[in-house]
Amino acid sequence: MNSWPLRPRAFADRRCLVTGGLGFIGSNLALALAASGAQVTVVDALVAEHGGDPRNLDGASSPIRVVRSDIGDGETVAPLVADTELIFNLAGQVSHVESMTAPMRDLDLNVRSHLAFLEIVRATNPGAVIVHTSTRQVYGRPRYLPVDEEHPTNPVDVNGIDKLACEQLHLLYAKVHAMRISALRLTNVYGPRQNLRCAGLGFLPVFVAKALRGDRIQVYGDGRQRRDSMHVDDVVRALAAAASCDGAVGEVFNLGHPDARALIDIARATLAAADRDDEVTAIPWPAELAQIDIGSFQGDYSKAKRVLGWEPFVSFADGIADTVAFYRERPWYLSST
Amino acid sequence: MNSWPLRPRAFADRRCLVTGGLGFIGSNLALALAASGAQVTVVDALVAEHGGDPRNLDGASSPIRVVRSDIGDGETVAPLVADTELIFNLAGQVSHVESMTAPMRDLDLNVRSHLAFLEIVRATNPGAVIVHTSTRQVYGRPRYLPVDEEHPTNPVDVNGIDKLACEQLHLLYAKVHAMRISALRLTNVYGPRQNLRCAGLGFLPVFVAKALRGDRIQVYGDGRQRRDSMHVDDVVRALAAAASCDGAVGEVFNLGHPDARALIDIARATLAAADRDDEVTAIPWPAELAQIDIGSFQGDYSKAKRVLGWEPFVSFADGIADTVAFYRERPWYLSST
Repeated sequence: MNSWPLRPRAFADRRCLVTGGLGFIGSNLALALAASGAQVTVVDALVAEHGGDPRNLDGASSPIRVVRSDIGDGETVAPLVADTELIFNLAGQVSHVESMTAPMRDLDLNVRSHLAFLEIVRATNPGAVIVHTSTRQVYGRPRYLPVDEEHPTNPVDVNGIDKLACEQLHLLYAKVHAMRISALRLTNVYGPRQNLRCAGLGFLPVFVAKALRGDRIQVYGDGRQRRDSMHVDDVVRALAAAASCDGAVGEVFNLGHPDARALIDIARATLAAADRDDEVTAIPWPAELAQIDIGSFQGDYSKAKRVLGWEPFVSFADGIADTVAFYRERPWYLSST
Repeated sequence: MNSWPLRPRAFADRRCLVTGGLGFIGSNLALALAASGAQVTVVDALVAEHGGDPRNLDGASSPIRVVRSDIGDGETVAPLVADTELIFNLAGQVSHVESMTAPMRDLDLNVRSHLAFLEIVRATNPGAVIVHTSTRQVYGRPRYLPVDEEHPTNPVDVNGIDKLACEQLHLLYAKVHAMRISALRLTNVYGPRQNLRCAGLGFLPVFVAKALRGDRIQVYGDGRQRRDSMHVDDVVRALAAAASCDGAVGEVFNLGHPDARALIDIARATLAAADRDDEVTAIPWPAELAQIDIGSFQGDYSKAKRVLGWEPFVSFADGIADTVAFYRERPWYLSST
């Protein structure tokens, strides 16, 4: 928000590797780590349409090394891993829709490259700490709310299936190979440095882009499905907490936010933050999205609170105001090039 | 057993494709389908050490066409799929230990090739029936016994993670693309045409081979962990039932056997079937196996009984006697070449 989300010097001189570090969450994390004193290296494949952009690292408080590579490319990645203490493994493709139209690509990016990466870390630096970002999508349509980590996993699209396999591989390597790996299951995240131009990255960037462009916002169905949206600064704090907590090893943690709101209310609040007072309209579900919709979701993050000492700080009102202000100052996020 | 497991003419003139059809279960199925009148094509990559062998189809009652190919190779496989009514998708690698030492290979064979195969079927013959063989390994260490299909999935090795993703992809394609796909979760299977020379294909072929070779049988731990072993003829009947049942589409079914026995008792019965009366010894768990052991398992197959009208016919005593007799007549299964 107004200052960096991590304490100054909290990561002083720590050697950190952020995969997917040119993307939305990765770039916010890389900047926050650099601001708290870390030596940060970013690995990013800059896969087209996935949201990564070198400009996301503009304004870094200390130099951030950027290496363009697939995380599974041992020749490039092994030397970086060998020289790292903390690995934040955020690379991946996030579009549920694209995972259905190009499923092989989703498998390669979200599972195959990660398994290769785990093998690289195991071979070159098995003592490194790894925090992996998983997703609430592994649960599928919730059987009860709020959803805790014991809720059965039942993903409803290729992306969810692949992300679940990827998370399971990470935790298996923690258990079987005694590696220091933990995983966070993220819910809908919004904030600065999100790609507002690509479709398929979730409803929040769509709402923000439409609010700022003056376009109407439409929600599917009755718009009453609820989401516990999180500001990216809270995710950055959770990633830092997991990397700093021995008790996190081998464990998976939900993140979440107590303020679960209906999609139509999230849309209205986003419009209001952009100083607009027009109405949100509800339209029927498109068929291809109805099939993979999960209804309402709220995560139970009491395990993260208990073990990591983490809970979200940023209210939706503050977070969305900060987000709108950020993009207003940087109109290139909205433009098509 | 003494006759083919499927009724004569039950699959008369049906065009059937069996992937992995040179392997243990696949070859038994291909032979049974051919004996019941089907036109059978087998696709098998004959991956080294995976148990496939062209000699497994010796004695077919009608010609079986054999195509050597990875199931994900569209150029070879698409024409076969286009001309098929019923697909039995049994290809895969089954070794849990190998999945830990060569995880990329397990991912490629058990997930990537299958996703490519699903895309081939979707593109060329989306109305074909597919029965996929999954495994009780998706459950991991059971939380309760017997394990029904609602039991949470929590695989404990790379093979289990990959097989779960593969099953989920199959059922997702049934749901989202309206394809006629079902899946069976198999437990430990024994019987004729199993590879007795490769390690890592389960304890049953190891016991059978040792019993026939005159080697001592050892079990890990106290040998009290229970398994509901199934004769392959019962699995063949289940596969045929799933392919013939509209109510199976989009569903997953446990297979199982009511006679769950301790491993040490299975070992003793196997020795007895080979006319031996020496003792089975219990030895401590090897470390790499203890990590991925799941304790006792028994599957609840009431859903398969209700929906498919299936239940196992073959008692362990009859099945193991049949198995030993089969291999005694075909000593090449035991020899190293």
